[in-house]
Amino acid sequence: MKNEKKYRDAFESGLKNYLDKKSPKNLYEPIQYILNLGGKRIRPFLVLMSADLFGNKYKEAVSAALAIEIFHNFTLVHDDIMDSAKLRRGSATVHSKWNINTGIISGDVMLISAYQILEEYENPLFSKLTKLLNKTALEVCKGQQYDIDFEKKVEVNHNNYLEMIRLKTAVLIGCGLKMGALIANASQEDLEAIYEFGELLGIAFQIQDDYLDVYGDSISFGKKIGGDIIENKKTILFHYAMSNGSINEKKELLKWYDKRIGNALGNEKIDAVKSIFDKTNAGEACMKLVNDYTKRAFKKLSHLNINQDAKNIFKNFGNNLMKRKF
Amino acid sequence: MKNEKKYRDAFESGLKNYLDKKSPKNLYEPIQYILNLGGKRIRPFLVLMSADLFGNKYKEAVSAALAIEIFHNFTLVHDDIMDSAKLRRGSATVHSKWNINTGIISGDVMLISAYQILEEYENPLFSKLTKLLNKTALEVCKGQQYDIDFEKKVEVNHNNYLEMIRLKTAVLIGCGLKMGALIANASQEDLEAIYEFGELLGIAFQIQDDYLDVYGDSISFGKKIGGDIIENKKTILFHYAMSNGSINEKKELLKWYDKRIGNALGNEKIDAVKSIFDKTNAGEACMKLVNDYTKRAFKKLSHLNINQDAKNIFKNFGNNLMKRKF
Repeated sequence: MKNEKKYRDAFESGLKNYLDKKSPKNLYEPIQYILNLGGKRIRPFLVLMSADLFGNKYKEAVSAALAIEIFHNFTLVHDDIMDSAKLRRGSATVHSKWNINTGIISGDVMLISAYQILEEYENPLFSKLTKLLNKTALEVCKGQQYDIDFEKKVEVNHNNYLEMIRLKTAVLIGCGLKMGALIANASQEDLEAIYEFGELLGIAFQIQDDYLDVYGDSISFGKKIGGDIIENKKTILFHYAMSNGSINEKKELLKWYDKRIGNALGNEKIDAVKSIFDKTNAGEACMKLVNDYTKRAFKKLSHLNINQDAKNIFKNFGNNLMKRKF
Repeated sequence: MKNEKKYRDAFESGLKNYLDKKSPKNLYEPIQYILNLGGKRIRPFLVLMSADLFGNKYKEAVSAALAIEIFHNFTLVHDDIMDSAKLRRGSATVHSKWNINTGIISGDVMLISAYQILEEYENPLFSKLTKLLNKTALEVCKGQQYDIDFEKKVEVNHNNYLEMIRLKTAVLIGCGLKMGALIANASQEDLEAIYEFGELLGIAFQIQDDYLDVYGDSISFGKKIGGDIIENKKTILFHYAMSNGSINEKKELLKWYDKRIGNALGNEKIDAVKSIFDKTNAGEACMKLVNDYTKRAFKKLSHLNINQDAKNIFKNFGNNLMKRKF
């Protein structure tokens, strides 16, 4: 992708520089660990790309990119504790490698550090970026709370599920793009449009994630197919089936999602659940949503006050993201 | 104490106003719970008093007072998880009343909220207050990490212990006073002096807390005497005894601090440990430190560019705090 190496190099060198200075060791070792596990670095990439395309300012955007990646990793470390997750990016999660207390405090330090890194910017930029982070951070926590709540409920209205996805994941994509645009001094209209592009694309991406877990191809998806089903995750497909299925279909689905029954059966469980999703048209409805949100996202690009080449780069990024080629 | 009711009323009404607006319920219920457990509200009091004495601005300081109290409660909720504490202010801690996940996420929300509440202020005040919170918040986390580390060590240098106290507790006292002074537009010299007054007084208070646990009077101290000893807390008295005691005294002290031996013995343990503190002059050394820090704190007041009455109010507050009359 265009300029990918340039952005990655700038970000990684900023990250190294940031991490090199930190002490005491006990406090920062888990932070270095999680940040050095890699990941796709989508969010910092978005900050740099946006600052570059709105005003050739990607170098000035490295600190904001760091802030957003460190914030994102704070959410991963605390969420992994809440989900009792053992693995993250193929390695031990912070709280499994150390302990829960270390996970809590290193997450706290990352959250505060994200704010502190923004001190790199002068006012009024500093306060704009900080306020955007405030709003986004609270939304992400709200999304996480909904996610926890919804896991306990059997039926969740689709709109509530979409709102959960929006808060938990999509607003941070919008925030990254808007931070870059703020640094490049974009107009109010452009700031709003690029934020909404990110938010809509983020929602599309997350719905597609639920879809690909069942209907995807494990190689391009990069995860084992049926993982969500095995883990009894209440994805949008599950909620679709629960609201559109017959009484018997719902009953069968719930039976498979009963931990005492379904979990040991592996592929048999995946096939059975998939067939319920097929019968209730959950997959189709889900794919339609993905297309709707992607289209709405791309439409936002047409209004941007930047040249066609720059718009194409955003669009190209969006297409690559949706094809899991990022 | 002068104006105490005025400040308390302003703060409590600001807090009620803040909490009334919050949703979703799941996310904010634990936050309302911990904030409504009361506590002495020392930190918000400091913000309002300082803003009042430096420039009659206590009403403008209510948001900063809220921010600092909410930040403080974030640290309590996360620290209580880390310490497996069951009680806080005589009631169940958040993670015992709900669960650890609720404690983690509601702490995160409080931390972010503390930042967001500062949006009440215009620049340059907004950015000054935010940066002060950034610095202080990171220091408090560092102090908590040292506290965890030191609990595992047998001997800790006094200076390191004092640094831990400074970071974990005293900087937030300094921060509260400085926030009030910033809102009242105090001079750079006054900002520094009032911060240092708070920091030194905070250190004196914390050392005295360790002292009173052994040598205090349970009624005026407000806690059961010997609680730290029963819990094997490595206070400054413990570290003094460990560095000044004879080989036998150290050995005996460690024996009592061995959970398998000491804990069931209650008063016998308290008396035995107290006698080691007496023999090693730990209590005396501790009291000397309290006096030194208190004197140094009060000396900072003499340089302030405010009238004598206002200085006396700060001094009076300091005396009351040290006499546990706050």
